[in-house]
Amino acid sequence: MTTVNLNADIGESYGVFHIGNDEEMIRFVQSASIACGFHAGDPSTMAQTARAAKDHGVSVGAHPSFDDLLGFGRREIRMNTRDVEYLVAYQIGALSAIATAVGTAVTHVKPHGALSNMAETDAEYAAAIARAIKSVDRDLIFVAIACSEMVKAGHKEGLRVAEEAFCDRTYDDSGKITSRRFADAVIRDPRVAVQQVLSFISEGAIITRTGKRISTPIRTFCRHGDEPTGVEVVRAVRESLAKQGIGAAPLPQLGF
Amino acid sequence: MTTVNLNADIGESYGVFHIGNDEEMIRFVQSASIACGFHAGDPSTMAQTARAAKDHGVSVGAHPSFDDLLGFGRREIRMNTRDVEYLVAYQIGALSAIATAVGTAVTHVKPHGALSNMAETDAEYAAAIARAIKSVDRDLIFVAIACSEMVKAGHKEGLRVAEEAFCDRTYDDSGKITSRRFADAVIRDPRVAVQQVLSFISEGAIITRTGKRISTPIRTFCRHGDEPTGVEVVRAVRESLAKQGIGAAPLPQLGF
Amino acid sequence: MTTVNLNADIGESYGVFHIGNDEEMIRFVQSASIACGFHAGDPSTMAQTARAAKDHGVSVGAHPSFDDLLGFGRREIRMNTRDVEYLVAYQIGALSAIATAVGTAVTHVKPHGALSNMAETDAEYAAAIARAIKSVDRDLIFVAIACSEMVKAGHKEGLRVAEEAFCDRTYDDSGKITSRRFADAVIRDPRVAVQQVLSFISEGAIITRTGKRISTPIRTFCRHGDEPTGVEVVRAVRESLAKQGIGAAPLPQLGF
Amino acid sequence: MTTVNLNADIGESYGVFHIGNDEEMIRFVQSASIACGFHAGDPSTMAQTARAAKDHGVSVGAHPSFDDLLGFGRREIRMNTRDVEYLVAYQIGALSAIATAVGTAVTHVKPHGALSNMAETDAEYAAAIARAIKSVDRDLIFVAIACSEMVKAGHKEGLRVAEEAFCDRTYDDSGKITSRRFADAVIRDPRVAVQQVLSFISEGAIITRTGKRISTPIRTFCRHGDEPTGVEVVRAVRESLAKQGIGAAPLPQLGF
Repeated sequence: MTTVNLNADIGESYGVFHIGNDEEMIRFVQSASIACGFHAGDPSTMAQTARAAKDHGVSVGAHPSFDDLLGFGRREIRMNTRDVEYLVAYQIGALSAIATAVGTAVTHVKPHGALSNMAETDAEYAAAIARAIKSVDRDLIFVAIACSEMVKAGHKEGLRVAEEAFCDRTYDDSGKITSRRFADAVIRDPRVAVQQVLSFISEGAIITRTGKRISTPIRTFCRHGDEPTGVEVVRAVRESLAKQGIGAAPLPQLGF
Repeated sequence: MTTVNLNADIGESYGVFHIGNDEEMIRFVQSASIACGFHAGDPSTMAQTARAAKDHGVSVGAHPSFDDLLGFGRREIRMNTRDVEYLVAYQIGALSAIATAVGTAVTHVKPHGALSNMAETDAEYAAAIARAIKSVDRDLIFVAIACSEMVKAGHKEGLRVAEEAFCDRTYDDSGKITSRRFADAVIRDPRVAVQQVLSFISEGAIITRTGKRISTPIRTFCRHGDEPTGVEVVRAVRESLAKQGIGAAPLPQLGF
Repeated sequence: MTTVNLNADIGESYGVFHIGNDEEMIRFVQSASIACGFHAGDPSTMAQTARAAKDHGVSVGAHPSFDDLLGFGRREIRMNTRDVEYLVAYQIGALSAIATAVGTAVTHVKPHGALSNMAETDAEYAAAIARAIKSVDRDLIFVAIACSEMVKAGHKEGLRVAEEAFCDRTYDDSGKITSRRFADAVIRDPRVAVQQVLSFISEGAIITRTGKRISTPIRTFCRHGDEPTGVEVVRAVRESLAKQGIGAAPLPQLGF
Repeated sequence: MTTVNLNADIGESYGVFHIGNDEEMIRFVQSASIACGFHAGDPSTMAQTARAAKDHGVSVGAHPSFDDLLGFGRREIRMNTRDVEYLVAYQIGALSAIATAVGTAVTHVKPHGALSNMAETDAEYAAAIARAIKSVDRDLIFVAIACSEMVKAGHKEGLRVAEEAFCDRTYDDSGKITSRRFADAVIRDPRVAVQQVLSFISEGAIITRTGKRISTPIRTFCRHGDEPTGVEVVRAVRESLAKQGIGAAPLPQLGF
């Protein structure tokens, strides 16, 4: 039986600043990437989120970011790669301790926002992230944008890499998500999202908006945007997988 | 043979903001408490400091603080104790990952500044810190102000507690350090500091400025202030211990 | 004709972290206190909020706070009073420039959260705030908790002081709002809020929950809490004032 | 008589984190650009620095930065230009209030670090800064890297622009400072710095390392680096100007 993973980025509140609908989303995913305090997520929010993940049988990952609360980690920051490496290690450790404190554990790492976007094509950033993961715990799974420099860097360091695709974004022929300048960039119809996910799984590839096939094994699916339709999209994908006889499991239970 | 520990608070720079003379201090201590990013200490500074500690055979501890870079963690902040607990856990974890990344490990926790000062007498803060330590790793040694609520809280949680006294501060009859309002609050003469340390060890007690004896086992000594004489004081204490046949070892090597 | 003021604390979002329903609230008040970046409110949010205030004919005030984004300015911080003074001056200036940039001006200052709560009874904090206001612009109106040390400090510095009461909190016989430990602390029924406001105005006093009358001239009313009923309470008060022939004007238009 | 200006970036400490030798530097310049809290400079440091400037007859300018304490404002951050605009306005206002509080005033604005570096060539960033200055106070002098997009943007907004060159950096034929990859990038010899300054003034141009002449009126000189020789360089330049009969005055006293 084919088994994949659905993941969500949660725990992105900060103090009284509330973001997201984690309580809903966590019901439909098997893994959660939790903000580590640098773009969102204070220690208590992290604890509450990790506990909720544990209670739902959802595996926990660190979602490290640039130190950019104001920009929610979405601003590109140019820094030296040594600093990127320790920035990531720090955040993995912070969440690991919180996870341990509430009785669960960090089992994957997925870069957030601009850090992820930059590392998609910047081999040095990608390598820094991979080194950080390896240096902290070589058993951590590296969740990386499919076909990115992060995938290469992760493999080079001998890490388990879970390539990720989005349910709710179309792809262009370069293998990247379609720019929001195009009308078909975002998928808001749950049925279309379901079709995309099922085709990516059955084809073992990303199928672009022009129909091009970019072969790569997608292990985990995420929604990308902040659309209010997000939960519905993920719920629909979860239900369609079950109907198709495709398993959905926490990342550590996928074979690598 | 009696064996004690000398510790120093290091790694308190932040980005280009340089503080302290860590390179000197680290030569005379056996354990170092490293800032974790909340009052000082960015990820790269933490890595550099942990690596220096490793290179000198110095054991590493987390030095968690209120989230107060502007006040260097010296401002008292009233927050709920649950938040204190995760604040501390977060910082222990952050440093642990960095320590792992550079090939060493966190083996103790010593609260910084106002967090420590408040927890000296506030049983709830003290308990929150002790719970945080236990929840992350029950083998961590809790370095706590001698005779404080932290000592009680640590014992209550079953932690190993290393009571700490200062080389360079006198004590009043309550067992606390003498207020700086008094002329004899700070010890700047290395010979006087040496005498204090040796008497505390031989007596198994704090000897106050009036000569009162408060029995408690001091396991580790630190300098308190920012006086430029700090390194000289610690160096003198280190040398006097050797002459007196008193061992000085990293905290994990002391019997508890 | 009697004229009073209704004010609201707005602009308390931060980057993508959205808080409050400013668009609704701003329709029912004549003055707005805008967060200045220390507990909430980034520069762009400040600009957007000041522009909205201008568009609604609402006068603008600075809402300075401790530097405490994580705690939303609700944590008590002990710092020296000189630092409090410049902390407040800084925030007044920051908002003033933003206000100027969008074509309006800061005309009052109202401390936020724990800073306000501490200065209610701490004469030194109160004096520091009053000095800050005077040093930046002695024409600024000081909006202060009725009967507080801030009122005294403002008068001592020769400032115009607008004493503030809450629509939605009852008062105990000390003149402070009733602790939330009591069931009647919060007023959620708009009709009860209206009665309280009208009685405070007609009596020229705070009427406590036991019926005690504490004579003091309330110039401005605010809702206190985060209850979802907040907008309804303020709207009801606004409408009742109109029906009673009581004017509602921006703070600078009240006679002092 | 020719009159120019020497300026220094000061007030770059933060809380207990001390940077620079402001007490020395302030004796040899006529204008000071003061950090505004975003890369350095807390409110109390700003007040102390502005007061020192006032005491030395030194005119005060805002030195706005990206919000980047960790990177000291030296990391390039990609953000939308509207946000840049309010980021700058905020900081000008914050310092203005502090300056007013201590009896002086902000009369110029000089972007710091990566913000300045990016705006040197990025016309949109440059325009955002110019708009910010104009929107807060159109009488403020815009101190901008000579020949940069900031110069053009300032002129376009009708601002007074003071083109700046460095005493201690050589220039390449593009009109930019020589990259530090070249051995002659930094001028550490005060006599060479003096020669460069005098030639730039007499020629009304930047003279590059190859001898090329780029005609532009330099109104103010600054040292660039953190070299310990910085004060000596500025002192030497100050003394040489006096000997050559060239005046040195605060920026507002230069004719524009």
